Amino acid sequence: MKVGFIGLGNMGGPMAANLAKAGFDVTATDLSIGAVDRAVEAGCRRGESVAATVSDADVVVSMLPAGAHVRSVYTESYGVIANAKAGALFIDSSTIDVDSARDVVSAASEKGFAMVDAPVSGGVAAAAGGSLTFMVGGEAGAFERAKPVLEKMGRNIFHAGAAGNGQVAKIANNMLLGITMIATSEAFNLAEKLGLDAQTFFDISSTASGQSWSMTSYCPAPGPVPGAPSNRDYQPGFAAAMMLKDMRLAQEAAHKAKAATPLGAQAEALYALMESAGKDDLDFSGVMKLIRGDL
Amino acid sequence: MKVGFIGLGNMGGPMAANLAKAGFDVTATDLSIGAVDRAVEAGCRRGESVAATVSDADVVVSMLPAGAHVRSVYTESYGVIANAKAGALFIDSSTIDVDSARDVVSAASEKGFAMVDAPVSGGVAAAAGGSLTFMVGGEAGAFERAKPVLEKMGRNIFHAGAAGNGQVAKIANNMLLGITMIATSEAFNLAEKLGLDAQTFFDISSTASGQSWSMTSYCPAPGPVPGAPSNRDYQPGFAAAMMLKDMRLAQEAAHKAKAATPLGAQAEALYALMESAGKDDLDFSGVMKLIRGDL
Amino acid sequence: MKVGFIGLGNMGGPMAANLAKAGFDVTATDLSIGAVDRAVEAGCRRGESVAATVSDADVVVSMLPAGAHVRSVYTESYGVIANAKAGALFIDSSTIDVDSARDVVSAASEKGFAMVDAPVSGGVAAAAGGSLTFMVGGEAGAFERAKPVLEKMGRNIFHAGAAGNGQVAKIANNMLLGITMIATSEAFNLAEKLGLDAQTFFDISSTASGQSWSMTSYCPAPGPVPGAPSNRDYQPGFAAAMMLKDMRLAQEAAHKAKAATPLGAQAEALYALMESAGKDDLDFSGVMKLIRGDL
Amino acid sequence: MKVGFIGLGNMGGPMAANLAKAGFDVTATDLSIGAVDRAVEAGCRRGESVAATVSDADVVVSMLPAGAHVRSVYTESYGVIANAKAGALFIDSSTIDVDSARDVVSAASEKGFAMVDAPVSGGVAAAAGGSLTFMVGGEAGAFERAKPVLEKMGRNIFHAGAAGNGQVAKIANNMLLGITMIATSEAFNLAEKLGLDAQTFFDISSTASGQSWSMTSYCPAPGPVPGAPSNRDYQPGFAAAMMLKDMRLAQEAAHKAKAATPLGAQAEALYALMESAGKDDLDFSGVMKLIRGDL
Repeated sequence: MKVGFIGLGNMGGPMAANLAKAGFDVTATDLSIGAVDRAVEAGCRRGESVAATVSDADVVVSMLPAGAHVRSVYTESYGVIANAKAGALFIDSSTIDVDSARDVVSAASEKGFAMVDAPVSGGVAAAAGGSLTFMVGGEAGAFERAKPVLEKMGRNIFHAGAAGNGQVAKIANNMLLGITMIATSEAFNLAEKLGLDAQTFFDISSTASGQSWSMTSYCPAPGPVPGAPSNRDYQPGFAAAMMLKDMRLAQEAAHKAKAATPLGAQAEALYALMESAGKDDLDFSGVMKLIRGDL
Repeated sequence: MKVGFIGLGNMGGPMAANLAKAGFDVTATDLSIGAVDRAVEAGCRRGESVAATVSDADVVVSMLPAGAHVRSVYTESYGVIANAKAGALFIDSSTIDVDSARDVVSAASEKGFAMVDAPVSGGVAAAAGGSLTFMVGGEAGAFERAKPVLEKMGRNIFHAGAAGNGQVAKIANNMLLGITMIATSEAFNLAEKLGLDAQTFFDISSTASGQSWSMTSYCPAPGPVPGAPSNRDYQPGFAAAMMLKDMRLAQEAAHKAKAATPLGAQAEALYALMESAGKDDLDFSGVMKLIRGDL
Repeated sequence: MKVGFIGLGNMGGPMAANLAKAGFDVTATDLSIGAVDRAVEAGCRRGESVAATVSDADVVVSMLPAGAHVRSVYTESYGVIANAKAGALFIDSSTIDVDSARDVVSAASEKGFAMVDAPVSGGVAAAAGGSLTFMVGGEAGAFERAKPVLEKMGRNIFHAGAAGNGQVAKIANNMLLGITMIATSEAFNLAEKLGLDAQTFFDISSTASGQSWSMTSYCPAPGPVPGAPSNRDYQPGFAAAMMLKDMRLAQEAAHKAKAATPLGAQAEALYALMESAGKDDLDFSGVMKLIRGDL
Repeated sequence: MKVGFIGLGNMGGPMAANLAKAGFDVTATDLSIGAVDRAVEAGCRRGESVAATVSDADVVVSMLPAGAHVRSVYTESYGVIANAKAGALFIDSSTIDVDSARDVVSAASEKGFAMVDAPVSGGVAAAAGGSLTFMVGGEAGAFERAKPVLEKMGRNIFHAGAAGNGQVAKIANNMLLGITMIATSEAFNLAEKLGLDAQTFFDISSTASGQSWSMTSYCPAPGPVPGAPSNRDYQPGFAAAMMLKDMRLAQEAAHKAKAATPLGAQAEALYALMESAGKDDLDFSGVMKLIRGDL
């Protein structure tokens, strides 16, 4: 099967490499020549342009920074929809705003193309290890066609319903994650200031009603979870800047949907304080440093 | 072993009953005659006063509303310390402020009594079922003596370190729980307003990084967790008023400890909005109704 | 001087009427025939279309709901830029996102038209009374040309600098207003619950460091400021729905500018709770009812 | 008239000096010998103890850090109530929790002493310059007796009603001030990041609905208000640590009064972030630095 891959950044690069490793015939392109060079080393063909990358592809996969990029890469005259071959399937794994996702799927559908939005959770390590989680929006038929491709890049593949619902699942999940990580940081900091050490609090709360993935898999207090970024000076992992991008997408979606998110709004503001202080290159669990006062 | 039990409210009543059922010789007292009557029906002896209740006891257990009650019940002339027999062990299971807990343990210690603070998590059903979690502060020897008694009332018994640390573990855990429940409500509400139903969001997020006890054991959106209060119109369970009491204890402890808790502060305010609206008799997961706008 | 006026809603209608009353030759249009009928009664000519309304105008004034409307009314083929006569001045008084404002001014400028963004503060009563405040972005020459027109609709006309700065001034001011109104509500509610009546607190705080326009001109507690909406059951005035629109514009601008606004974010969420509860038709000072628990 | 003055810190010292300068016969005491030495230089007599300081006084004035100090200084056996002469008037100008204020007034009243709580607003400069604002709680007769004394130390003397209401007015006002200062900082920062300079935003918003004392008398952005701490690197003025103390008193009063204060809670947390970062010695308007990311 021929795959055209567009967008070879920190996430897209290893994802394309995993498809090549799995035996797909992958042509890959990016604005950065260096990124394309690395993809070629990893077994992909060089895509000279978006048009050239997709013209022969059975499946197009894209991994781009924001809705504006996805809109232009798919819908401009040099883009995917205008140049793909009939019957191709489109998979956009970018994390973008829900409206852009739904608009581009509509545009593809009008020209007869099946498309899913399939944003991921899991950071650079999961992209490299092929253990990403995909949250997929789109029609059942498109989901079934996308699944065998996504399984080469990820471990859990969820169908979230209609077009755009992949994005909805992603931003609602990540808003929740972003809040819970701050809450967990506040709890560990409070416990410690009151004389209760991190390991003991972890032992109790992780088996009680304070438990969350943020605590048990990614504890923001150094110690209890050895593999967590807190044990390597909060080197990402999943950078605060990336979390902030997702928090802002969630807020903007909430504005449009007329949903109240008091803690989501507050959490966005706290990651924004990290950004303003120039520390958003830390892992998002580094919000512990903001709470502790040693950012 | 003879137990003196003080405080027979919604929690204390079934706890005393469980001790009697386990074969202890329990004398129980309360300001409410009706509460004492029920304890007697459940197999306890009638305690005519605090002094009479504790004078013969090997172990004194108390379950009271606030720090002021614990201070007066233990330290006044009619109280526990002045009237207990030498060598008795004191277990205070009230959820109270850390300073009061530490002060009363000190006062007991000065008179030669061993004492632990042992607040619980789990609501009325867990008290009745003997499945509470106890978070215990105090010296190792006192903890070991308390454990066999606590095991008759609860399932998980944690030693949180020195005196007062039981309270610290409790309020840090419950602050975290209170925040996470609101965060989970916001995420389900946002998802739903954007077209993603609760069950599908649950299926994805509960196996991803948005997972927490609030979601998987107590989901505030009706449907995914059948036993949760959300499926019975948010009848408690653990009332918002009780959660608010714990959130306020956490805030006051944070003030004294000079710990910043931005989301803890915000969560307290949101449960306070439920209180001001006269809806704090709902389960705390009923904060979903505040978020949804149908409180 | 001939004026083309586009957008005759609650604000635009009386603004157009004031221009006609001041002696301008005003042609007015709107999607609502009823709105145009009222404008005609108030002395305007009927504009059959945007193109017809602007083709002969020396000055075009628009008052529209959102950035998308401004973009399409100005830049589409049936729109202002394509149909205005050479040398016309454009004044957009809509409150919209900064990017849209700057983009449309650029598009006008490319075709040789001077344009200012001139959003207003003050509600329906100020629009009717000709006492609006205009915050104007654009080049000095354009500002000077706009001023005599704006003076017929408003009392204070401020030049905020380059294109888009009118919107910036408006949303930064209204974000501040929206927060301060909630803060004032919280303070009056707290004072009252602690036994200090509204008039006494007003007498003290309005002459001390708690003073603000929200308190002295628009007090959210009934009593101290007779003309305030709080004395007529929070009938607007300036509806919470309109304030929420501005708070969301401010949040979205903050996201793009990478500015942290923790209280702005929280205030947005509180007005959103009013919206979710179906009470955003109240004046924005009705947030007092949310805080008091009687929304 | 003989005055006994207790508590000669940054505020109490200059207040006592102003009373001496006004011709009162002032005996002054403090735990710090140095502070008493300075009071003696300023014209006061040396008070060797609380008892000696008050035994001969017609009026006792106290200025102490917290409720616990006021309770002990007034009600212990070595204290004011036990040692004052019959008919003396007590004025406590400390900013403390409402409960302590009311309890001590009750204790004084039981022994036949009139007492007012009279906390101040205005910082060290206002204390030195005799231009403080006093917010006074207590019976009308006591207020009238206190007024001529307070007028030697302050410019505005408000009667806030019954005992404790001085504290209520103070904390409600300062909670409002603390929130509004952060809101103003957020607005100036947002405006600036969007291209609108501080002076222009000030010129517009200070005459519009964003106006507040925080903006017009104490602008947190450097420039518009020359005398403000923002123009001297946020040297106090009124330190963030002092504001935080008041914000915490407000939160604790709100907890007891069952009042919801979402923005008050959030503002407390933001000043607490300054404290945790070790920067609470800055003026409270230095919260601008937190918002800007250069704390």
